[in-house]
Order: sequence, then structure tokens, then C-alpha cells
Amino acid sequence: MKTTLIMSHPYFEDSRVNRALFEAAKGVPDVSVRHLEAIYGSDTRAFDVKAEQDLLIGADRIVFQFPMFWFSVPPMLKAYMDEVLRGKFINDNGNSKLDGKELQIAISIGAQESEYSKKGSVKFTLGEILLPLQLGAYYCGMTFNRIFAAGGALGATEADIKAHVQRYVKLLRNELEEDEYQI
Amino acid sequence: MKTTLIMSHPYFEDSRVNRALFEAAKGVPDVSVRHLEAIYGSDTRAFDVKAEQDLLIGADRIVFQFPMFWFSVPPMLKAYMDEVLRGKFINDNGNSKLDGKELQIAISIGAQESEYSKKGSVKFTLGEILLPLQLGAYYCGMTFNRIFAAGGALGATEADIKAHVQRYVKLLRNELEEDEYQI
Repeated sequence: MKTTLIMSHPYFEDSRVNRALFEAAKGVPDVSVRHLEAIYGSDTRAFDVKAEQDLLIGADRIVFQFPMFWFSVPPMLKAYMDEVLRGKFINDNGNSKLDGKELQIAISIGAQESEYSKKGSVKFTLGEILLPLQLGAYYCGMTFNRIFAAGGALGATEADIKAHVQRYVKLLRNELEEDEYQI
Repeated sequence: MKTTLIMSHPYFEDSRVNRALFEAAKGVPDVSVRHLEAIYGSDTRAFDVKAEQDLLIGADRIVFQFPMFWFSVPPMLKAYMDEVLRGKFINDNGNSKLDGKELQIAISIGAQESEYSKKGSVKFTLGEILLPLQLGAYYCGMTFNRIFAAGGALGATEADIKAHVQRYVKLLRNELEEDEYQI
């Protein structure tokens, strides 16, 4: 299974958790990683749309990796969606060129993942909050995989980060067990 | 009631509905309008954070006006949230400086608003889809007003646009009736 991993972080220079996940992802077989801000800076109109579309077409699984700020994706990832997925780049036969691929969301969140529940402080689940991405995936004919979250990013210890990295590498290798999505 | 209206549109040059709404908003008393892309271009890191924060502090109501693409806000509006609302710019006493203000979402959508329902093609309501903005408002201590939508933007006739504009001006004047939010 070929994976194209799109990572976006508006303040990567301050990143600890996402940086560790991203570095680990680089070493996983059949995973190609792209860091949007490193390639395109902070310009929402700078994308090489054709090149990005070709990379998505060549993948079986697309990963969007980012820190969740304001309950949503970073600006450069939203710009990527607007510019690259525009019209879900329809085939001549009217189908989406992303039809049948998997979309995997992999996020870091400052709070513990348990806060994202009816009983937690946020009151809503990550699935409810990231509904826009699920609907976007369906709109493109993609499968929406279970969300992978690295919780407690604020104040994460080195041991916490190492545990997140281990789970992430397993996810990218398709070896993550159901009970390992949350820790 | 003083209103600061933040409009963001990644492709304003192609806009019909948002352009008409924005032009009409300029003439409403006590409404100050800002077009993010006209001021800051497409650079997500170009914001004058202090100036933007001062404009929000001076308002009783904040309006985010935008076309909904990929079930979410435009990239420059998301960047605005990340950069300007960062840390909800906490007071010395620990409170949000946005505490008690209203957040009003005003969107255009290509499909008819009726599609955004359990029975419609999207299967989810605009309230469910825009939950991230509601949670963001609550996080800042703001009231989240009922969402204003201009549906059917794709293929809207001049008469459709005129009707949307009339409703929008009433909304901004605080004269919109409950049954006028949807048409």
C-alpha cells in the first residue's frame, strides 16, 4: 500500500509532537512525506497543483497530519484542499480521481483525548469535530479511516512522545490494533 | 451595537454572492468591514495581529463571512483565527478579551440549504458541520449566534442574490426575523 503523507503545521519551529511523528514517518516503507510549509511557505496560492494531484493519484492512502488548533486544520492544509482537491479533479468519465482511496487523519491535540467526549470538557468527540474532513473524504469517494490522535501534546514528556511515535509507525505500517488508537 | 465584519474569500474575483453581501454590508450603520485577502493577500503570516485584536475588542458583534468550501472556512480566515485569536488574547485577570461578544457566521453555499439536513444529500446540518466555529466561540467566552446562510450560490439568479442581500442587511441591522434565516 502506497501512502502519501501531507503534514501541515503553522508553527513547526515550536513543534515537539508533530515533529517527532513526522521524523518517524520518513523511515516507514512505502510512505512518502510532504511538509507543506517547508515546500510552499505560508502562501496559500503557491501550490504546484498538478504535481500535488499526481502524488495523490499515485497513492492508495492519503494521510493528513497536523496539530488541531481551533478544532480544525491548519490554514495551509485548508488551502491545499481548496487548491489541489478542487472539483475533486474529476475524470473524463465523471468520477473522482480519488475514488476508493483511504483518507487517514493523524492529529496532535494539546488536551488529553479523554476531554473530547460527552463527559470531557469539550463535550464533543473528535469524530464530531472533524466531520468536515469526513464529509470531504466522502465527497471525493474516499474511505475515511479511524482518526489517529496524539493527545496531551501540551506538556508531553519524552516518554509520551515516544509512545505516540511507536503507535504512529504501527499505524503507517498497517499494524495498529484497535485498542491502540487511544492511549 | 458595534459590529466588526471579517470577510474571507479565496477566489473573490469569481465571487457573485459574497461580493454582493459584502458590498451591501459596507452601507450598514455601525458595521466595519474587512476583506482579509484584500488587506493581507494570500500570506497566512502577514496579519497585523495587534491591530486586528484591537478591532475585535472594540466590537460587540464579530461576523465571519465566507463561502463554505470543503465544509469549512477559507485558509486566510483559519490563519486569522490561529494568529489573531491566539490564546484568545487573555486579559491580565485571566479572562478572554472576547468574553461576552457575539460571533455571527454568515456563509454562502453552492447547494440549496435544504441539502444540509438528515434528508438532504449532505446528511448533516450546517450547525453540525460548523461545530468547530461554535466550539471556538465558546472557548473565547463568546455567544454563538444562529448561522446565516445564503444557499444555492451556484447558479443564483440576480433575484436570488437580491433576496440574500436583503436578508443580510436585516441581519446586520438586528432586524432579521426567525423565519427569515432560511429561504
